[in-house]
Amino acid sequence: MKDINVALIGCKFMGKAHSNAWANAPHFFDMNLRPVLKAVCDTNEQVLGEFARRWGWQETETDWHKIVARDDIDIIDIATPPGVHCEIAVAAAQAGKHVFCEKPIALNAAQAAEMHHAAEKAGIVNYLNHEYRRCPAIALARQLIDEGRIGRIFHWRGAYLQSWLVDPNFPLTWHLQKETAGSGAQNGINSHSVDLARFLVGEIKSVVAMQTTFVKERPLAGEAAGTFNAAGGDSEGPRGKVTVEDAISMIVEFENGAMGSFEASTFAPGRKNYNYFEIYGDKGSLIFDLEKMNELQFFSADDPEHAQGFRTILATEPCHKYMANWWPPGHSIGFEHEFHHGVVDFLDAIDKGAGVTPDFLDGLKGMEVLEAGLQAARTGTKVVLGS
Amino acid sequence: MKDINVALIGCKFMGKAHSNAWANAPHFFDMNLRPVLKAVCDTNEQVLGEFARRWGWQETETDWHKIVARDDIDIIDIATPPGVHCEIAVAAAQAGKHVFCEKPIALNAAQAAEMHHAAEKAGIVNYLNHEYRRCPAIALARQLIDEGRIGRIFHWRGAYLQSWLVDPNFPLTWHLQKETAGSGAQNGINSHSVDLARFLVGEIKSVVAMQTTFVKERPLAGEAAGTFNAAGGDSEGPRGKVTVEDAISMIVEFENGAMGSFEASTFAPGRKNYNYFEIYGDKGSLIFDLEKMNELQFFSADDPEHAQGFRTILATEPCHKYMANWWPPGHSIGFEHEFHHGVVDFLDAIDKGAGVTPDFLDGLKGMEVLEAGLQAARTGTKVVLGS
Amino acid sequence: MKDINVALIGCKFMGKAHSNAWANAPHFFDMNLRPVLKAVCDTNEQVLGEFARRWGWQETETDWHKIVARDDIDIIDIATPPGVHCEIAVAAAQAGKHVFCEKPIALNAAQAAEMHHAAEKAGIVNYLNHEYRRCPAIALARQLIDEGRIGRIFHWRGAYLQSWLVDPNFPLTWHLQKETAGSGAQNGINSHSVDLARFLVGEIKSVVAMQTTFVKERPLAGEAAGTFNAAGGDSEGPRGKVTVEDAISMIVEFENGAMGSFEASTFAPGRKNYNYFEIYGDKGSLIFDLEKMNELQFFSADDPEHAQGFRTILATEPCHKYMANWWPPGHSIGFEHEFHHGVVDFLDAIDKGAGVTPDFLDGLKGMEVLEAGLQAARTGTKVVLGS
Amino acid sequence: MKDINVALIGCKFMGKAHSNAWANAPHFFDMNLRPVLKAVCDTNEQVLGEFARRWGWQETETDWHKIVARDDIDIIDIATPPGVHCEIAVAAAQAGKHVFCEKPIALNAAQAAEMHHAAEKAGIVNYLNHEYRRCPAIALARQLIDEGRIGRIFHWRGAYLQSWLVDPNFPLTWHLQKETAGSGAQNGINSHSVDLARFLVGEIKSVVAMQTTFVKERPLAGEAAGTFNAAGGDSEGPRGKVTVEDAISMIVEFENGAMGSFEASTFAPGRKNYNYFEIYGDKGSLIFDLEKMNELQFFSADDPEHAQGFRTILATEPCHKYMANWWPPGHSIGFEHEFHHGVVDFLDAIDKGAGVTPDFLDGLKGMEVLEAGLQAARTGTKVVLGS
Repeated sequence: MKDINVALIGCKFMGKAHSNAWANAPHFFDMNLRPVLKAVCDTNEQVLGEFARRWGWQETETDWHKIVARDDIDIIDIATPPGVHCEIAVAAAQAGKHVFCEKPIALNAAQAAEMHHAAEKAGIVNYLNHEYRRCPAIALARQLIDEGRIGRIFHWRGAYLQSWLVDPNFPLTWHLQKETAGSGAQNGINSHSVDLARFLVGEIKSVVAMQTTFVKERPLAGEAAGTFNAAGGDSEGPRGKVTVEDAISMIVEFENGAMGSFEASTFAPGRKNYNYFEIYGDKGSLIFDLEKMNELQFFSADDPEHAQGFRTILATEPCHKYMANWWPPGHSIGFEHEFHHGVVDFLDAIDKGAGVTPDFLDGLKGMEVLEAGLQAARTGTKVVLGS
Repeated sequence: MKDINVALIGCKFMGKAHSNAWANAPHFFDMNLRPVLKAVCDTNEQVLGEFARRWGWQETETDWHKIVARDDIDIIDIATPPGVHCEIAVAAAQAGKHVFCEKPIALNAAQAAEMHHAAEKAGIVNYLNHEYRRCPAIALARQLIDEGRIGRIFHWRGAYLQSWLVDPNFPLTWHLQKETAGSGAQNGINSHSVDLARFLVGEIKSVVAMQTTFVKERPLAGEAAGTFNAAGGDSEGPRGKVTVEDAISMIVEFENGAMGSFEASTFAPGRKNYNYFEIYGDKGSLIFDLEKMNELQFFSADDPEHAQGFRTILATEPCHKYMANWWPPGHSIGFEHEFHHGVVDFLDAIDKGAGVTPDFLDGLKGMEVLEAGLQAARTGTKVVLGS
Repeated sequence: MKDINVALIGCKFMGKAHSNAWANAPHFFDMNLRPVLKAVCDTNEQVLGEFARRWGWQETETDWHKIVARDDIDIIDIATPPGVHCEIAVAAAQAGKHVFCEKPIALNAAQAAEMHHAAEKAGIVNYLNHEYRRCPAIALARQLIDEGRIGRIFHWRGAYLQSWLVDPNFPLTWHLQKETAGSGAQNGINSHSVDLARFLVGEIKSVVAMQTTFVKERPLAGEAAGTFNAAGGDSEGPRGKVTVEDAISMIVEFENGAMGSFEASTFAPGRKNYNYFEIYGDKGSLIFDLEKMNELQFFSADDPEHAQGFRTILATEPCHKYMANWWPPGHSIGFEHEFHHGVVDFLDAIDKGAGVTPDFLDGLKGMEVLEAGLQAARTGTKVVLGS
Repeated sequence: MKDINVALIGCKFMGKAHSNAWANAPHFFDMNLRPVLKAVCDTNEQVLGEFARRWGWQETETDWHKIVARDDIDIIDIATPPGVHCEIAVAAAQAGKHVFCEKPIALNAAQAAEMHHAAEKAGIVNYLNHEYRRCPAIALARQLIDEGRIGRIFHWRGAYLQSWLVDPNFPLTWHLQKETAGSGAQNGINSHSVDLARFLVGEIKSVVAMQTTFVKERPLAGEAAGTFNAAGGDSEGPRGKVTVEDAISMIVEFENGAMGSFEASTFAPGRKNYNYFEIYGDKGSLIFDLEKMNELQFFSADDPEHAQGFRTILATEPCHKYMANWWPPGHSIGFEHEFHHGVVDFLDAIDKGAGVTPDFLDGLKGMEVLEAGLQAARTGTKVVLGS
């Protein structure tokens, strides 16, 4: 086991999730590279100190340029809002660091392309953390597809629904402004769905879409309002304009002829983190719901006719990807463990001199779909990708 | 209780469902008008005789014009494929008969308009049998909305998924040809979803869409192949062109600002009759799945914060619409009983000299949405209704 | 098709359910014997007339002895409370009538034995209407067991839970008195579970049990209070003693070595008609819930290890028993249709000169288990059947 | 924050789960006492070294007596099989160490009593790790009961079902022998159910039961076969006698008049870790299933009559116990996190000089119920506790 030095940039929700993965993955997985929590960087010095102490980051830094410039850092982990992903990732790649980058990849496809090209040129391992590919139930979905158990795919029916913006006094955080978020539900959550659709079904060829913004102005956010469980804003104070969509729906055609639908909204009361999809093929069908993340539903047309039905597979068994490393059969894992799997596979790629997906190219392709969707919604016209 | 004479036209799947309703509704419901099964009409004389005997229709007829012309018929029940709905309904209206018409209303909006105007002019009671409005769980959905428990609606998320066309040797029945069906999944099943969306959310303003036909040619259908459990066609024999869509998806904007999505397909293995919708509002949300037709899921944002969640209401209790007439609490009903409810409400409207919905005007409005969807799919451009 | 004359005794909930089955089964099923609704009998003359008119019973009678004595009656259908089952059934058998008898068979095993012996001696077709054996999903459970897909059975885990007695002012109907009901939850609902366990697993060898009565006194019931959706009693008026158990649980050993559990209660808020069981075998497992009566859950240990899980089979397809007679694929049936299936199979047995199950012997064996359970609960000691 | 030194004894499944909790709890929770992973003890020296390295235990030891005798240890964490719990716990208490003890408390009630008295006498904080009390969904169940939302409880209906012993060649591990396990499914899993029933409903007064052993002889276990995902044994080699029950069911009376049922089996194919219960009260009902550990189902009789139903609460929100410390709303946790909650509450008790439950007294009371159940099963007679 060899040490490898990690520097984390950003210490809010995602900084916490990443720290947890770097710190704990080696407890469960046999890894050739042992991540050393070398340095953590954030602009808020006060938060930073407490964060570093809690998670065991050895050093702190408030300027990410200095972190990237250090010789003793092997990996840059970008856990900031997407507005600065491109700048950091390109600099890190140019400095020869491997990059572990939180989603969405960037504000737009142009930035994603820049990141991809910088990474290609530098030859570094680059990973975009669409963590759901590493949910064991979704890895199982992919396995069943690869085994031919779904057959020719007819339909992808996806949705990513949450409810944290229903309160009109939820403050105007960075998520709600185009300059910092690129777009709203599209980049924030539909990016996950598009990544999963590309992972499980294939590339997307064309798209029509509609979008809306239900709450057009919101209270200005205070200092603390960086994360999506921000306390309600001040209903009496000054308000600012929401410049991104609250909800967006797309219908797409895949290159392989399948149809797809995507629906992303943060205005779905009752849904907390409903990352959901259905896949229908001529041999079988699949259903996944992140709110039941240890389960995958599978229908097989190969079952005897009188005994066909969607079966609920508990993807908690040693035969399911990643699960043998956790607990004995029948013991569930939680949201955070997908990040561990990402860290493990990323380090394994570095160790082997190989790549890992999704990478910046996946991020670019996904972002092209997301941009096409936004354009289709704006224009009311079908957008053909690559045209 | 006064007798009222009914004549049924068409004796396949829907003729059976309608006969059952006319014959049995009076056993369970107290009705001022007692339907008399006076005459039944079909072009297939052999099937007709056996059908009449089985259901107790007093007389048979092979020419619908004669039925419509008879003085002793009060109600014309149209249970044929949609290609002849318009012709029959207009004639029946002009003859002063009340009309009970199976869905979809007709081949297209022009025909629907003709039917609506004829009915208006004649002043007859006209009913379009989108039976799901009379599913007690859906009636409950409407009641909860009317009570203000859902609040401002943000989203309609509908799907109607089946799997009976996945087999490429399923024969080329009337459902699969534009001349006889108007369109495919759009008229066949999306018409139900659009009717429910209009019933529960409101009128639709604009639409974008995509559609596809997965199986482009199918074996020619034999005589018997009228219904959708037709036996597999002859894979070696001559094939004909499928001229309608197998699947269509739409995204819409409602007049009240809500967004909606519709997905209709007969290529969804594992789904038998999955007429499904979700409604999200700022006070609560609803989920319905016809495959569990006695249930409605309801989320209330008014519940205590720590005790919120989708609750599964068994709509089988005396307090639920229609249910007091069936069995004691906790006893489920089946698909067919929605037709009984339609018959009961239709006869009640005649008795009271009132209207009943959905009527031909609803059929027309729904058909306008369906046509807009087909046009949007064809052109790749958003279609604004009424423009 | 030959006519066969039926006389119904009792016209409350079960009289209605039986009438519906006699009247409608021939619409859906091809039957050699056509049931003629010849006569109906009840002590309440006023209710009787309206009931006969509604359902088309040709004649009425207030004394069941006269009905049994008539030469033109072929079938006696007993839909009364269980207190008079034995007397009527024995007289009917002695008069050579076939008997269709509602459950529970009688007040106790002694009566059941008398009925069984009278039927045997007379050689008549005798049927005990535990209708759930004819729920298609349960027929499928039996089929999967017969096909060897469950293997050696380890466990039966049954429950029958309702909530209609939670209100302490629910009146003291016949269900709540030993003289008229024999016992409470045991005869009322556990009789169904025991019948299903015998049908699906096998004979029961020994039993331990506990029981309780949560509400010990209730308002005296008025005239109308015959059915279990009786209106709340008068909380101020006189009360009488409840002489049966509100809830009873049993653990049993089957002759084949399986263990079983039974839990019957009418004090389970949230449960309307929760007739539920799980069966675990070394090759597979089954779950049924009457509140979702069109579904059966099936786990197969023969599925690939990574794709195992309980699948939800919609037992609504033509390949499922009885279903081809109803509607096209994917259309659900309701509670009442189990009665149609009973009528069809009973008439078929008469036509063929064969037997049908469950019969009075099944009723006797079931009642022996129920009595053993009551005795075990009373004594706190294991009761071995047949000892 | 003050350091407190922990020594762990046992490093198999539970040693791993405990290590994980000691190591990671401080990352998420604000704690006055910081656990220092001081020493770990196991008899298998080779496994021990690798285990200590992986988890960061500073020192290793193969003789637990030496660990207990050390002055620098504050807490003894017992994660061994139950056969040695008593000996270690008593010694640890006598040495003034706080004790964190894995379930089941011991082999029998006599040992549990000894442990309880030693702990009482020493005045140490003693905790028995029935971790499910600290599952947020179950903590919520308790909260809803405490808030009066369930009312007078009528029924506890519990089951703990798994399937890891179905294979007759699963080897004869320590779980299957009375000397090392005390009993089988009773101590192994029913102990959890009994603990939850006592936590949520109350003390148990009397019990009847049955038990069985489906596979009476099994292959002798090799060295490695310590955990319950042991590889299949050698089907050809020597076999030994299983001396505990594979399955046991109990029916109980609670002191408050409620009835209860318990069913524990490792012969339930399709069930992986199905720790399940239903609670029915006159104001509401609850359902929990560990295989969906982030969910609690709640039925409220206070809901409007037409809108009543079991609601599925996602216990993943900041308002749910422990959850504010993990992730933003809607992010699930896994099995392991219950252990973190146990560590947090245990350390908090030490810090405050208070107690924590379940403690050894709870273990004793639970064990008395378990023993009564075994005796009732053996004798076929009701056992009244405390008699």
